[in-house]
Amino acid sequence: MQVYDTTLRDGAQREGITYSVVDKLAVARLLDEFGVGFIEGGWPGAMPKDTEFFRRARTELNLRHALFTAFGATRKAGTTADKDRQVRALLDAETPVVTLVAKSDVRHVERALRTTLEENLAMVRDTVELMVREGRRVFLDCEHFYDGFRFNPEYTTLVAYTALEAGAEAAVMCDTNGGMLPSMVTRVVGDVVERLAALGVEDPVTRLGMHAQNDTSCAVANTVAAVEAGVPHFQGTANGYGERPGNADLFAVVANLQLKLGLKVLPDGCLEQMVRVSHAIAEIANIAPDTHQAYAGSSAFAHKAGLHASAIKVDPLLYNHIEPELVGNDMRILVTEMAGRASVELKSRELGVDLAGHPETLSRVTDRVKQLEAQGWSFEAADASFELMIRSELGDAAAQRPFSLESYRVLVEHREDGAVVSEATVKVRVRGERVIATAEGNGPVNALDNSLRVALTKHFPELADFELADYKVRILEGSHGTGAITRVLVETRGPGKDWVTVGVHENVVEASWHALVDALTYGLSRNYAVGSTNSA
Amino acid sequence: MQVYDTTLRDGAQREGITYSVVDKLAVARLLDEFGVGFIEGGWPGAMPKDTEFFRRARTELNLRHALFTAFGATRKAGTTADKDRQVRALLDAETPVVTLVAKSDVRHVERALRTTLEENLAMVRDTVELMVREGRRVFLDCEHFYDGFRFNPEYTTLVAYTALEAGAEAAVMCDTNGGMLPSMVTRVVGDVVERLAALGVEDPVTRLGMHAQNDTSCAVANTVAAVEAGVPHFQGTANGYGERPGNADLFAVVANLQLKLGLKVLPDGCLEQMVRVSHAIAEIANIAPDTHQAYAGSSAFAHKAGLHASAIKVDPLLYNHIEPELVGNDMRILVTEMAGRASVELKSRELGVDLAGHPETLSRVTDRVKQLEAQGWSFEAADASFELMIRSELGDAAAQRPFSLESYRVLVEHREDGAVVSEATVKVRVRGERVIATAEGNGPVNALDNSLRVALTKHFPELADFELADYKVRILEGSHGTGAITRVLVETRGPGKDWVTVGVHENVVEASWHALVDALTYGLSRNYAVGSTNSA
Repeated sequence: MQVYDTTLRDGAQREGITYSVVDKLAVARLLDEFGVGFIEGGWPGAMPKDTEFFRRARTELNLRHALFTAFGATRKAGTTADKDRQVRALLDAETPVVTLVAKSDVRHVERALRTTLEENLAMVRDTVELMVREGRRVFLDCEHFYDGFRFNPEYTTLVAYTALEAGAEAAVMCDTNGGMLPSMVTRVVGDVVERLAALGVEDPVTRLGMHAQNDTSCAVANTVAAVEAGVPHFQGTANGYGERPGNADLFAVVANLQLKLGLKVLPDGCLEQMVRVSHAIAEIANIAPDTHQAYAGSSAFAHKAGLHASAIKVDPLLYNHIEPELVGNDMRILVTEMAGRASVELKSRELGVDLAGHPETLSRVTDRVKQLEAQGWSFEAADASFELMIRSELGDAAAQRPFSLESYRVLVEHREDGAVVSEATVKVRVRGERVIATAEGNGPVNALDNSLRVALTKHFPELADFELADYKVRILEGSHGTGAITRVLVETRGPGKDWVTVGVHENVVEASWHALVDALTYGLSRNYAVGSTNSA
Repeated sequence: MQVYDTTLRDGAQREGITYSVVDKLAVARLLDEFGVGFIEGGWPGAMPKDTEFFRRARTELNLRHALFTAFGATRKAGTTADKDRQVRALLDAETPVVTLVAKSDVRHVERALRTTLEENLAMVRDTVELMVREGRRVFLDCEHFYDGFRFNPEYTTLVAYTALEAGAEAAVMCDTNGGMLPSMVTRVVGDVVERLAALGVEDPVTRLGMHAQNDTSCAVANTVAAVEAGVPHFQGTANGYGERPGNADLFAVVANLQLKLGLKVLPDGCLEQMVRVSHAIAEIANIAPDTHQAYAGSSAFAHKAGLHASAIKVDPLLYNHIEPELVGNDMRILVTEMAGRASVELKSRELGVDLAGHPETLSRVTDRVKQLEAQGWSFEAADASFELMIRSELGDAAAQRPFSLESYRVLVEHREDGAVVSEATVKVRVRGERVIATAEGNGPVNALDNSLRVALTKHFPELADFELADYKVRILEGSHGTGAITRVLVETRGPGKDWVTVGVHENVVEASWHALVDALTYGLSRNYAVGSTNSA
């Protein structure tokens, strides 16, 4: 099975993604940790950053599983392969594998390339032959294969045949417009195999590849269908990133093939890297991870309905289609209005707090959660705030705020000289002492956070080890008619642990204040170490 | 074909969704406009809000296409259907259709319900018979059907058979754990049809339904596979909302069946309501619309690569799998580093600015876009800022800011009495006059916006017709190592038109300032009317 990843080339075409060379090297490392067989690193002829990427990858990366492939077009019409500058750039990338893209749809050859059908075949033949002569393994991406095949099956097959005869290892059938359904893919693959066999290709299905796009929301299913039909090479991207509705989500494809169809796809130990790799690549791509992503999403195994939560207590596998640990995930119990006591109890146990012996507290917490959530608070994403609330209801002194607020003031100025400055002053009471502290920052919330730290640092020097890692602002509609409120989620990083806290208010600064205070309180209450014997 | 929507019941179990009764009524209206046949409105026995919803829906909604169904469980073990309180609540909802859910997996009957296999069948029989006696049409959701069928096919089939014999119109095969692949669905459906035929059911495939969950990322494909196998009833939710990775996206299923398989699924004129309905429901659910959603996403037909953009100019259907207008969508050309001149030219044309005759400006704009985007600006989501930049490069005076900023200052205070106040002061020069204005707001950005309006309102009274409709904040990592920057997108609503502007800065207030100024400038430059003869 050839697991071919194009996160760094086709996947990079997703709206909002711009990878630096450093980003690309980091993504490549992660893809290798997931165990893919091929990493399509970029298009060296067309993108200067990609030429640099291949150069640095050669020396800086020591991949365990994957081979690099460089992607590029067949030679232009009317020239020769060795004279084509972009083709030379492909060779200069010095990758063991090269993937060429060619038009395989008659209409595209005539209208977009504006050349003859014969010349297009020659372009394929010449470029593949050159690459093979230069010692490269070659894949040929047949662009618009499925649409082309339905319009003129002979010619489209001929493009694939020409590539294979010229020495390409596989001809990849690309559903470039993404309009296919699984049953159509199965039929086309069967038909193509017959035609290639008739042309004399031996065991043709083993010389085919699949590349799906997700315009019908069936990219994963289309890819699985092709593999079920015997196609051994499939392409996809991390988290399904790509243009328009994206490419086939490689993680879901691999999990489906390995866990549902029992095929050996990845090296041992790689599948359980999925969640980690998925999230890390999202972070590098600067895209919020899709919490609802199959297999890898943080909510993929998160059960909400009270109905399910009570059954899960009985037998986790009654409601999970796989054991979450197989892909590095785990169950997460959501706490919301439908959940009821069973969910709150489960959630608390997950957080290390046993409410089973405290039925009154359990009721009180359940009601408080419903009440706060009705006002816009969300504990689903803010485990640390939720834990603080539970501990506080249990009378745990360590969950109390270690200081009290008298007042604060935050100022942002855009001065006449054009400078933009932010300054915050807090007045707090810490262990009986009244403290006034002022700090600047690169924004109002940063200034407020800094001033609070200045105020608390004498009594709590360990605050220096906490770092504001992420900050999310969401404007929520009030119950329609009333004013909007702002929900702020703050992610704090401490030694060995991250935690998320929430704040809700119509004023973003005040909402941030709540989240920041919870963040510091939580960090101090746990001595910011998981399983610390010091936790109060 | 029975198009069955469960957005308001199963779909409501998605993390973060909480529908008020008013929300539900609005969603039901929209689903009806999309032409679904059945709207599962809720679970009246379990959720007080749902009982009220059905009561109000009866009198307040005049649906053109859909029938309401009330959802609930079969009677509890050891009692009778007419004595079961939740079953009575189902009847009290007074819907023409009732959907009952029953366990159909031996293991769930024994371990979760903890009753006997025979009693479970009696629960199905009794409750269905009662509903039929009371004049309701009945569907029976067979929970965990696929997993149950693979474990004990006889019993699982018997549950479906019992429901059909008792008078249920269809037995719905629910892939509750979401672990199925399309080829497995096809096999199971074929097997079930054989077994039901052997039990004496006439034309059994017409008595089956499909309900998929998306845990393998194949819910849409699984649903299509079932319909291809002859199953006429299928369930799904708007935008695929639901627990864990969600339910089958009803919009994608319907589009696939109608546009790819040529089946008549919706009433005429309904399919093109998709994008509008999809976005409206997302807004009501308070979930950011998935820009990459198949068919309905704003990026579903958005082409980025310069490669494609140059071909699109030649023939739009070469690169789109369907005509976007069929689902109420359109192409949107993204402008980013890979795009090159062809994309900028297309984008400008889309915005009503013809750059074809201005090659130098085209180059200048293309370079400027690349430059700004490298710093974090994003014009993909901010058409109005992009248009202002182009017009400004073309020397269009109307695109210039109608005022100049001298300075501003924004203050947020949390006072000793607990009150939180925001105040902003701007000093600007408007048409030669120096103006100082101060205003309060419910947050720092709102205060700044208000003060700017106060300052400009004498010269531009039409500003009163613009309204800040949405405000998105995104923290972006600087090129790793440097500080994070904040990108703010502001959506402004004017008479007959909305527009989006962007601002980028490390300080959220300054970033918001940029976006607000662009918003006002744009609104004033266009006289905020599409196609106005006054547009400069």
